[in-house]
Amino acid sequence: MSMVNRQWRLAAYSESGMPTVANWALSGGEIPKPAANEMLARAIYLDVAPYMRSRISPQKNYAAGVKPGEIMIGGGIAEVVESNAKAFQPGDIVVTDQGFGWQEYAVLRPAAVRRVDPALAPLPYWLDALGLNGMTAYFALLHAAEMKPGDTVVISAAAGSVGQIAGQLAKLGGARAVGVTSSPEKAAWCREAGYAETVDYRAEADLRAALARACPQGVDVYIDNTGGAIHDAVMQNLALRARVVIVGSISLAGKFGQPDLGLRFQRQILIARATIRGFLVSDYQNQAEARGRMAAWHRAGSLRSRFDIVRGIENMPAAFLRLLASANVGKQLVQVRDEPSATR
Amino acid sequence: MSMVNRQWRLAAYSESGMPTVANWALSGGEIPKPAANEMLARAIYLDVAPYMRSRISPQKNYAAGVKPGEIMIGGGIAEVVESNAKAFQPGDIVVTDQGFGWQEYAVLRPAAVRRVDPALAPLPYWLDALGLNGMTAYFALLHAAEMKPGDTVVISAAAGSVGQIAGQLAKLGGARAVGVTSSPEKAAWCREAGYAETVDYRAEADLRAALARACPQGVDVYIDNTGGAIHDAVMQNLALRARVVIVGSISLAGKFGQPDLGLRFQRQILIARATIRGFLVSDYQNQAEARGRMAAWHRAGSLRSRFDIVRGIENMPAAFLRLLASANVGKQLVQVRDEPSATR
Repeated sequence: MSMVNRQWRLAAYSESGMPTVANWALSGGEIPKPAANEMLARAIYLDVAPYMRSRISPQKNYAAGVKPGEIMIGGGIAEVVESNAKAFQPGDIVVTDQGFGWQEYAVLRPAAVRRVDPALAPLPYWLDALGLNGMTAYFALLHAAEMKPGDTVVISAAAGSVGQIAGQLAKLGGARAVGVTSSPEKAAWCREAGYAETVDYRAEADLRAALARACPQGVDVYIDNTGGAIHDAVMQNLALRARVVIVGSISLAGKFGQPDLGLRFQRQILIARATIRGFLVSDYQNQAEARGRMAAWHRAGSLRSRFDIVRGIENMPAAFLRLLASANVGKQLVQVRDEPSATR
Repeated sequence: MSMVNRQWRLAAYSESGMPTVANWALSGGEIPKPAANEMLARAIYLDVAPYMRSRISPQKNYAAGVKPGEIMIGGGIAEVVESNAKAFQPGDIVVTDQGFGWQEYAVLRPAAVRRVDPALAPLPYWLDALGLNGMTAYFALLHAAEMKPGDTVVISAAAGSVGQIAGQLAKLGGARAVGVTSSPEKAAWCREAGYAETVDYRAEADLRAALARACPQGVDVYIDNTGGAIHDAVMQNLALRARVVIVGSISLAGKFGQPDLGLRFQRQILIARATIRGFLVSDYQNQAEARGRMAAWHRAGSLRSRFDIVRGIENMPAAFLRLLASANVGKQLVQVRDEPSATR
């Protein structure tokens, strides 16, 4: 066990515009000692995800932000190395959704972790289909959007962590999934994963018309991970009683905190009698049941994920910025160290 | 009975911008003869309402538009003067929501009318609280917005036909109604009718801040009759799980059909986990029950309306433009002739 705990702390808020690596600073901290009913865990995979963009801003958000000087928030898959918690032993693998932080070692309470069973799904899946991404896709589609068989479902950032799962869930639910993505490579993966059709927003001069061709009956459900120009194009193709779920607005990452100016769609919402709903996965309580269904689909081979894994904790900010720049295909993770032999 | 049927026909589409009186032409038509199971009725009050703006445009809308040369769409309260329908006799008073047209005489089928009982409420109420306005306020608040006691309910165009009723229904339902309106006279009527507070959007330099003062706990429900700058101010004051019902967009009347550009609120929707819903009153089927409840509130003295009545069918376009310019206080109607003595 190395004697330092490398940690990424927020160096400065990113008030608006795109953050840069200079927004974080890497330092070597002490490896903490677990108190009673706590455990010390060592990171194997660390998460980077779009929600982190809004946590490094001083702006109002749905959750408390990270302050300069604090360790950057994030989930992780980790091996227990020392435990004062009865139910956990050294060698156990655990996952936390957001409570690990960008660091090599963390002290965790049993209530903050879930136990990872590597026999059920490979380790990275526990931060993906069986983590916040999977839960987001599941509850956004099946609950917030009330998806029905036969629906035309448009999903933006379709090759991203939520998008790749949402497309497959739409297909499993008897809907027709149309993915909006940004490169031929991403589009190919989306179609392989189960999307009926894809639209490359960087290749289309008229995105509204391209979506109209891909969705001749209009858009029944839109899982909006991006906002921006894709949102605009979808809003002009709404079917009657369309349901739009606002999951994220990653297209605004480069102008975060600045006023978002552009087309507005009150008339389209009225005419379609559409519903637009803001979505936050933590509002949904029955995640254990959802996770069970997701794991069953995974075991049956009908739910796969592609991962985009960067090695080395020194690359955390770079991996996060890669995500904001839409350079990743599939779920972006950082592998901090090799998996223990038992899980390989 | 005069021998001509004065009628307003659409002369030309109003493609964008504000219509003018030149968009309609008054002509004298023949008084039609009712066929089997039809009746001939003579207008007493004719309706002008914001929805008519979108019906004189060639743009896509929720309902078929009026074409140039056709009689302008509109509801009316009328006296039956000749009847081949068993259930109706000359002298009966009937109301149609939209099927009368801007004319003195219309042939109507029994299925298209409701019988007016002048003992239940004065005639104008049948195009107001007991008509589309009342139904809109009722279903928008109690169904689409799922209003609960204690909610802070903001209503735009608060002294208008829907607004004046919605404010009273909010109060009856135990909510706190905040009306956004455009003059001290309108504000005074709103407070008299039951609004807890009013905000004059023409008098406030910072509407967002004014609404924040009027709604210190945020906005739980917004009945959006206007769109535009009022919408913007409300969207920046949403309470958690706010419900916004898009009923109309009268502020766009002056730039109807042009792209609506301005602030966009995906982040606010996400953070508040708000729901934005497009609303059309004709989607709601149980209007008979709603009308019964509205009539009971009216009889109990807890639901009043103010009317803004212009005389003379020659003033139909002027009355409609008055409405689009927000010059009316309360429900705008045109009185075509005196009420029959029995209803006065």
